[in-house]
Amino acid sequence: MGSGMAVSLLTLSLAGTVSAADSTTPSTVQAPPSKNLIVLIGDGMGPAEVTAARYYAKKFLGKDRLELDGGYYVGKATTYSEASPYTTESGTVTDSAAAATAFSTGNKTYNNAISVSNGDVAKPYASVIEAAMKQGKATGLVSTDNITGATPAVWASHVRQRSNQNAIASQYLNSGVDVIFGGGKVNFTTKEDKGKRTDKNIIPDFQAKGYQTAFDKKGLDAIPVTAGKALGLFADAEIPYVLDRTDTVPSLPQLSQKALDILSQNKNGFVLLVEQGRIDHAGHANDLPANIQEMLELDATFKTLVDWAKKDGNTSVVVSADHETGGLSLARDNVYELNVDLFNKQKHSYEYIDGILKKAQTADDIRKIVADNIGFTDLSDEEVQLILNGDGSSYGRGGGYNAVVSKRLAVGWTGHGHTGVDVGVWAYGPIAALVKGDIDNTDIAKSGAKVIGADLAATTKELQDKYLYPMFKVTRDSKTLFTARSLAESLGIQVAWDEATGTVTFTKDSQKVSVLVSSGAITVNGTASAWVGNVDNGKLYLPLEAFNQLTGKTYTWDSFNERIVKN
Amino acid sequence: MGSGMAVSLLTLSLAGTVSAADSTTPSTVQAPPSKNLIVLIGDGMGPAEVTAARYYAKKFLGKDRLELDGGYYVGKATTYSEASPYTTESGTVTDSAAAATAFSTGNKTYNNAISVSNGDVAKPYASVIEAAMKQGKATGLVSTDNITGATPAVWASHVRQRSNQNAIASQYLNSGVDVIFGGGKVNFTTKEDKGKRTDKNIIPDFQAKGYQTAFDKKGLDAIPVTAGKALGLFADAEIPYVLDRTDTVPSLPQLSQKALDILSQNKNGFVLLVEQGRIDHAGHANDLPANIQEMLELDATFKTLVDWAKKDGNTSVVVSADHETGGLSLARDNVYELNVDLFNKQKHSYEYIDGILKKAQTADDIRKIVADNIGFTDLSDEEVQLILNGDGSSYGRGGGYNAVVSKRLAVGWTGHGHTGVDVGVWAYGPIAALVKGDIDNTDIAKSGAKVIGADLAATTKELQDKYLYPMFKVTRDSKTLFTARSLAESLGIQVAWDEATGTVTFTKDSQKVSVLVSSGAITVNGTASAWVGNVDNGKLYLPLEAFNQLTGKTYTWDSFNERIVKN
Repeated sequence: MGSGMAVSLLTLSLAGTVSAADSTTPSTVQAPPSKNLIVLIGDGMGPAEVTAARYYAKKFLGKDRLELDGGYYVGKATTYSEASPYTTESGTVTDSAAAATAFSTGNKTYNNAISVSNGDVAKPYASVIEAAMKQGKATGLVSTDNITGATPAVWASHVRQRSNQNAIASQYLNSGVDVIFGGGKVNFTTKEDKGKRTDKNIIPDFQAKGYQTAFDKKGLDAIPVTAGKALGLFADAEIPYVLDRTDTVPSLPQLSQKALDILSQNKNGFVLLVEQGRIDHAGHANDLPANIQEMLELDATFKTLVDWAKKDGNTSVVVSADHETGGLSLARDNVYELNVDLFNKQKHSYEYIDGILKKAQTADDIRKIVADNIGFTDLSDEEVQLILNGDGSSYGRGGGYNAVVSKRLAVGWTGHGHTGVDVGVWAYGPIAALVKGDIDNTDIAKSGAKVIGADLAATTKELQDKYLYPMFKVTRDSKTLFTARSLAESLGIQVAWDEATGTVTFTKDSQKVSVLVSSGAITVNGTASAWVGNVDNGKLYLPLEAFNQLTGKTYTWDSFNERIVKN
Repeated sequence: MGSGMAVSLLTLSLAGTVSAADSTTPSTVQAPPSKNLIVLIGDGMGPAEVTAARYYAKKFLGKDRLELDGGYYVGKATTYSEASPYTTESGTVTDSAAAATAFSTGNKTYNNAISVSNGDVAKPYASVIEAAMKQGKATGLVSTDNITGATPAVWASHVRQRSNQNAIASQYLNSGVDVIFGGGKVNFTTKEDKGKRTDKNIIPDFQAKGYQTAFDKKGLDAIPVTAGKALGLFADAEIPYVLDRTDTVPSLPQLSQKALDILSQNKNGFVLLVEQGRIDHAGHANDLPANIQEMLELDATFKTLVDWAKKDGNTSVVVSADHETGGLSLARDNVYELNVDLFNKQKHSYEYIDGILKKAQTADDIRKIVADNIGFTDLSDEEVQLILNGDGSSYGRGGGYNAVVSKRLAVGWTGHGHTGVDVGVWAYGPIAALVKGDIDNTDIAKSGAKVIGADLAATTKELQDKYLYPMFKVTRDSKTLFTARSLAESLGIQVAWDEATGTVTFTKDSQKVSVLVSSGAITVNGTASAWVGNVDNGKLYLPLEAFNQLTGKTYTWDSFNERIVKN
């Protein structure tokens, strides 16, 4: 009976834990399995990228495996997105925005969408970070990419188009996210500060809200762990590749450690998103040596995070990717070989070298630059020509350089875009049991929310009660019009088409708005109005006033964030 | 105390199971977790191949996932092999022989090796099938490839070079394997029967040993489940691609079901290896539509096997691959799209179509053949030219055809060879817990042996007591000589080099053999002998007689199997 007794004691002990849970939330029957959640994303980290980094670690770092390989691999995730409302893209190959919306909110959407649904009138989806804030948890976003890039953006902002990075930065200001570390200062500042904003520099607004700010390694170090809120912008755009960094730029493990130090002060716990964003960029460019260094930084970051989680004992960590980038293969042509010996020879990334290659005048210039950067002293005339002419892509001479290097390393790429292969999932802590086996990327968000007890549905409802993200057009006289049928349907307005008169009629309760399609003339409850509709590509567009008339509401258009504000 | 009591009962119940274990094996403290083991290999089934098949299944088969996706994915395996003793290959990219040796015996070796160790004097490694035979279990090999191909061969034969397929067939005859189903009849028959053997047709030898034989679907059906032993050879070489098969050829699920029916008659259990061997071939050729059909046949085979295992309740199933083939990527260039719509349009494989394309005289001939086979009626002049000229590989016009099709499907390939990406691992039953997470392909053999209680080490020792597989050369006068130093070291013979006299001396116990390197003249215990040594490329070679003299043994050379027989 010995083992039976032991189990009984364990049962009692668990019951004790439950009754000791936060007494301010009596509705919680049982404490969630984890207090803290850490999500680590390798942007563009496909299966081959992981294997390549392992080959490097074994050859040059004296390791027999990656940190990731230490018993954390639990499954793989499908990555597909949905058909685009803007283009012919079917969604078989995802972009980072759709993939990140999936693993942050649990919902599929179209490529380019930042945590909004698919369709003409999109609705916002809450992320695990937004839901965790309702629990009083601290939250953080850390990336080596622009911090307003898609992968961090989906956790704390909502826009129809990922390119609207100024809006994303502004939404961060009001998001409540406590720690924001990354590149992409340009979306926080105006032209005067080398920025891209036309409204204002919003860094002082963050400071006014209590954010401590930092712009280099020294600044990062100076932020006290008790800061509460911190904004760190360590590059105008992306943080430089590992190969190109100077000491003034913090590394991803350093950024992650500081984020942990700050966020873990919150006794309710925290959710932290960390992205290694430049595996993807090196993949797009087909630069394997740079790609491997970014992969190894992800791996070192994983160690930082999981070591912390182990020490803490109350933290779940999950690692995955949004998609593979570049169609990397380890070997090429018909040779059963991979020249791992050459994986560590490159001093700087293609990005750095391209600036130098651009100035080259002669074949000898090219030869010297390549010899200096990677030690190849025997370039053939063809190789020199490929670099001089570029690879035919927008990567120019840097692209030609990468093509030459890849061939010598015996690695293949099938392009400069994303590919559709399933991506790996690694995990530590209670979340591991929830994301094992064959999962979809949406399962990462669902499991993340579950493991900390965050309510995605309730938080999504709050957001959807506030905002709608409709398709719209701006007329030549600067009026903003909305796709009438789909917005009407979203707002519970009846739509009827009368063929005989060429009129569309919108009805809700006692209100009626009719539009003569041929002219766009609008009649409100039988009386001609000054509003004008517009038919474009077979779709009727109407001004917001028509919908306010019909619904009796006073919805407003937030042109900066491209959304309708409902209250 | 309710749950404590329940666990106590469970503990008692488990104890009961243990004491009920086979009482004829008192040394077995506990019954192994599984009685039967099934290993299913998708040759060339990399991560992207799995995703591609899933896209097809979702689009055209009305399924929301593959059978493999149904909760069986447990991890991924590294695939690297070892540096070759014959070539400059470093082993970063494996071939099927080294990979299959790893997952059948638990040992790494060089590309081309069939279950022998690396080095000048290789030793045989026992497979899980060979070890299971010692337990009185039935065993079977099933493949759509030549049954003497590397993936099945490693389970029941041992040769230095995978190309020695006649020897592999002969070793099968004496292996004790009960069920052998596949292609590759040519290695069992002589020229008279369109075969490749020069000695004899060995099919009658199988029949004399009690094997029932079959050469088509009808023959397969006629084999009774009580046959005990069965040899089915359903094609001269590979079994045709799924796209090219006629009704007379059995499918892999049919072959697998028959193997299960026969093997499961053995009350001691069984081990069955099933290989879908032509995913790899379609990958080498870069034919995605054919590749997908082979993948789907593997998936259907998995269902057959796992359904059986579930019903049986005492069976472990593990699924993996040896390596990826072709460097497949799902999307290419810089387009975020995959034309899944076209994945089901191809009627026949490149292999079938190449025969027709070879006869084409004009561009119009090419256009018609392609239109008939895949419905593309708008080939550009460039596409026609690519097919006419071939893709520059040995695949000729079939290769050109595949290049055109791949581009239209928007899939990329980086060559015609293998690549080094980690491969997936799926499992059902007790083995699942042993192969989860990040494993090496050798862990599959180790776990397979463990789960059925087979003793790989003891069986390997038996084999190594019998055979040695040395490097050798055949002189112009047809004498076979062996690399002297390494064979001496393997046999515990002392080797000494005397610079002054240019003599190598071999000593064991009272025996001494000296070789004057300049002439190859051999002195035995001080007396000149008729034997002659030979130095080639800095290595000394000696005849077997010298080693017999030194060891006092009567080792013989089995030139057909290229091995030394020790007893």
